[in-house]
Amino acid sequence: MMATNGKEDVSVSSNDGSGYFTKSDSAAVNGVAPEAPSLSRLQNGGRARPQKFTFSPEPSVEDIRRLQAEFTDERDWNQFHQPRNLLLAMVGEVGEVAELFQWRGEVAEGLPDWTESEREQLSQELSDVFIYLVELAEKCRVDLPQAVLRKMALNRMKYPASKVHGSAKKYTEYKD
Amino acid sequence: MMATNGKEDVSVSSNDGSGYFTKSDSAAVNGVAPEAPSLSRLQNGGRARPQKFTFSPEPSVEDIRRLQAEFTDERDWNQFHQPRNLLLAMVGEVGEVAELFQWRGEVAEGLPDWTESEREQLSQELSDVFIYLVELAEKCRVDLPQAVLRKMALNRMKYPASKVHGSAKKYTEYKD
Repeated sequence: MMATNGKEDVSVSSNDGSGYFTKSDSAAVNGVAPEAPSLSRLQNGGRARPQKFTFSPEPSVEDIRRLQAEFTDERDWNQFHQPRNLLLAMVGEVGEVAELFQWRGEVAEGLPDWTESEREQLSQELSDVFIYLVELAEKCRVDLPQAVLRKMALNRMKYPASKVHGSAKKYTEYKD
Repeated sequence: MMATNGKEDVSVSSNDGSGYFTKSDSAAVNGVAPEAPSLSRLQNGGRARPQKFTFSPEPSVEDIRRLQAEFTDERDWNQFHQPRNLLLAMVGEVGEVAELFQWRGEVAEGLPDWTESEREQLSQELSDVFIYLVELAEKCRVDLPQAVLRKMALNRMKYPASKVHGSAKKYTEYKD
């Protein structure tokens, strides 16, 4: 499955399918338009358009659930994959993500100073969190994609844009 | 967006769109075929087929990224959403999932003894973990869906089904 990543209009960008952008994309990664002339720049009359990062359209959350269920079945591992074990596995992977960020100061969007190897490790640890989250939801019979839509609707009600603009307060701290 | 959930062949099951199955599905939730005769049962010559739980096909991971990006933009919250802050937010939500499982013994697949309210809370906390995971990946420029495919390929190499069948050992513990 190739990552098209919605970036077909940028002539110098590429995604090597690793789930991370390669060195040649470092300009794009940091939100700066690449130096080489691109179709979109020409179309914009010479003005660079800010790069929009998007995920690949596939695989879906359900694809990931199915692939992981097959992986677990083939290995006869369902005997170990009770909800609490999966939760602990997820906690462990979250810890591995945290390890990659520890002992650093704040890190800017796009992780400009990270090496390729650090980026690859992060990509793997975030994937592990995702895989266990999906399997935990499955074993708890939570329809995760639909649950997220519903939670997002709740969040929009709790935090109306007009009321909370530019503020990091918790919803309980706002006075009506 | 309606959840079809791949269960059209089961006459008594329904998903209320809450991301969680309603009481009327409790039999299906626990992997036991519902009492009412269903098309699939008739097709199987009277033998109940085990219920297969699947996620809804939508929204995609990219849909979730985009919706959360819009939510953050509308509130001018990108100023707070640096990678390390998002990681801490995710850790906090993982803690809220853990709280729902603490002080219980092991919990069976499908959470048979949980109340509707506990299920709803779980559905919300798993969603929060997912939302922050997606935004963290976005801000780190990790193409999460593709990264997961790649990590799954690595996992299949690390844990060949023929070698690890029924064993919970870590890959470093296997002798060649």
